[in-house]
Amino acid sequence: MVKVAILGFGTVGQGVAEVLSMNAEGIAARSGTEITVKYILDIRDFPESPFADRVIHDFDIIANDPEVEIVVETIGGQRFAYPYTVKALSAGKSVITSNKELVAERGEELLALARANGVNYLFEAAVGGGIPLIRPLMQCLSANEVTDITGILNGTTNYILTRMKTAGVSFADALKEAQANGYAEADPTADIEGHDACRKICILADLSYGHKISPAAVYTEGITGLSAQDMHFADQAGYAVKLLGRVQRRADGRVNILVAPHLVPGDRMIANVNDVFNGISVRGNAVDEVVFYGRGAGKLPTASAVVADVIDAAKNRGIDRSARWVDDAPDFANNANDMIYRHYVRLSGCTALQVTKQFPDAVLVSESAQCVEFTTAPEKTGEVLAKLDMLSAEGAHRQSLLRILDEMN
Amino acid sequence: MVKVAILGFGTVGQGVAEVLSMNAEGIAARSGTEITVKYILDIRDFPESPFADRVIHDFDIIANDPEVEIVVETIGGQRFAYPYTVKALSAGKSVITSNKELVAERGEELLALARANGVNYLFEAAVGGGIPLIRPLMQCLSANEVTDITGILNGTTNYILTRMKTAGVSFADALKEAQANGYAEADPTADIEGHDACRKICILADLSYGHKISPAAVYTEGITGLSAQDMHFADQAGYAVKLLGRVQRRADGRVNILVAPHLVPGDRMIANVNDVFNGISVRGNAVDEVVFYGRGAGKLPTASAVVADVIDAAKNRGIDRSARWVDDAPDFANNANDMIYRHYVRLSGCTALQVTKQFPDAVLVSESAQCVEFTTAPEKTGEVLAKLDMLSAEGAHRQSLLRILDEMN
Repeated sequence: MVKVAILGFGTVGQGVAEVLSMNAEGIAARSGTEITVKYILDIRDFPESPFADRVIHDFDIIANDPEVEIVVETIGGQRFAYPYTVKALSAGKSVITSNKELVAERGEELLALARANGVNYLFEAAVGGGIPLIRPLMQCLSANEVTDITGILNGTTNYILTRMKTAGVSFADALKEAQANGYAEADPTADIEGHDACRKICILADLSYGHKISPAAVYTEGITGLSAQDMHFADQAGYAVKLLGRVQRRADGRVNILVAPHLVPGDRMIANVNDVFNGISVRGNAVDEVVFYGRGAGKLPTASAVVADVIDAAKNRGIDRSARWVDDAPDFANNANDMIYRHYVRLSGCTALQVTKQFPDAVLVSESAQCVEFTTAPEKTGEVLAKLDMLSAEGAHRQSLLRILDEMN
Repeated sequence: MVKVAILGFGTVGQGVAEVLSMNAEGIAARSGTEITVKYILDIRDFPESPFADRVIHDFDIIANDPEVEIVVETIGGQRFAYPYTVKALSAGKSVITSNKELVAERGEELLALARANGVNYLFEAAVGGGIPLIRPLMQCLSANEVTDITGILNGTTNYILTRMKTAGVSFADALKEAQANGYAEADPTADIEGHDACRKICILADLSYGHKISPAAVYTEGITGLSAQDMHFADQAGYAVKLLGRVQRRADGRVNILVAPHLVPGDRMIANVNDVFNGISVRGNAVDEVVFYGRGAGKLPTASAVVADVIDAAKNRGIDRSARWVDDAPDFANNANDMIYRHYVRLSGCTALQVTKQFPDAVLVSESAQCVEFTTAPEKTGEVLAKLDMLSAEGAHRQSLLRILDEMN
């Protein structure tokens, strides 16, 4: 019998209690032991919940109860989650979390603390929700050098982009729909500005390359600047517009990493990832491309991943099952502008002639009194930006700059 | 330092040696120990190979060398692979394999033997080649009751179907192309008749439900009967034709299982799995649907999965990392004709009027002097077959019967 405490009884915390209860028999068979929830910590009471009798308000009861071997942290954020996680690990309890912010910001420190205390810190649910991703990356692809990870890591923005494409609605209206459907929060900044995706690609990069990359150091562009004209070009040219987190190994051993909207060719698997779903493409030097697809958020899917980690910790008490990243290497992540892409550009206030002077290899898409649309040859984004600066000095105004995910990327 | 012996130096065996060599540094870092190939067993010599000095012809040298802790079996088939695997496990060596035939036919026995000897029998590469699948199913989805697995499990047939669709070539011509490109063997029976896919869906079912299902007991229909008219209907109606292995949990605790060509709606992820790629959809009662995609065969992709197992065994000596299936339950797998589908049917020698008498809810697709095409309402395949028997007694001749993978399936 393994006893678990759940910290934070919000959507995911409730999902964890529900999955442990509804699949109790199978979970016991697969764990080799029964797993039960002893405490649920929250500031609220839940008199209507079937778990009402387990709700407490004092974390120290959990920290001081030697019967509790596993702590599930589903509080989110850092304010409470961080000190509670430190205390739980220090008290010799394994901690399982879905908290991508805490893992991205302090994963390295918490993994070291877990290791020092002979327990595990597991966070399969922090990236890709219910999708098996971290464990496959760490275990199943361990024979590979990972050369590239490209993922649709945020369901809210993918829902918005899907609606913009299929229903032709504006970004603002799609966002309102997402909020009405419970897919976006009242303050959607972390999603639509790309910060959530950024935390997740950082975690995947940390795991794959063994160095902590701070989200603050990563070029992060959200989807708020996307217009109907961008969607129109994408449709015409056979692309889907997707917000991608990308990390790419460089020849010098460092990595390029960014979060930005991309034009994805329709025949790529991730182009077909729609609505709130996530899809993550991983390339390794032996396996070539593998793609993982599923629900990146939601009560039961996220709980599925959390409980899988609980089972892993319960089955493997005393065995180190945690990920490992080596150190904080400030220069490890490179400038995203070094990445080579074809780009889609739309300018107003200039002519095609001016464009082709700066971009002799450009392919013109359209020219009108309002704007010039073109795609560049493959080159570094930084070089494109420099040329656009020249055009801007001649009076051009940039309406759009989108990266194109070619097969070569 | 962990020493490995490779049995069978064909495509996959060579890939394993190559991956262990090319990624040696990263593999050592991730395993916590260096992994080297001590012996390669084959009846042939390989004087040109960089591994020529390790080739031997006598299995007993391996069985009797206590330095060899891990044996990689990439012989295939059962004749040599089975006795060698038994001897290696009995000698206290973990065995890693990509041999789906051996796992499907004797996995239960070999897992028990491994367990009795305190070693591991691992076979991630046996299903889905390089795609992380077995370990995610066993570990990451362990909080779920698996309700359905639906997979494109054979790359050869998927290549043929892709060519039939995109190039409009006949089955016979597409098969010739596949053979010319090295995607199909000289004797393609195991692929095109569905036996390879059948072994794989049996392994996935065994793992998910804990009972051995014998491939011989599974309804298995290949793709040799597919015609240009089938592809035409699929195209018109927005379906892709895919050879699917499926296993589905029934309310009575048993499973329905089959291998057959299906019509897959274009918006399903697996409809977009083309060429030699594999794609496997798994549904669980918490996670909903997850899909795994990648190369289901090939030298380095398959070796990627084999070497991941080697790393797992090397890292976890003395720890049970193997899958578990419980017993041989002859009545566990049910009749595939119990599965409920909409069906696509094409008949000659009868009229639409005759069809609607037997199938009052049918949707007529076309009627001509040559044939009547229609789709049925959702019902058991067995019931459809019974009605077709009635029509057959009236002189109708069945040209085609295809299952439609609706969202309800």
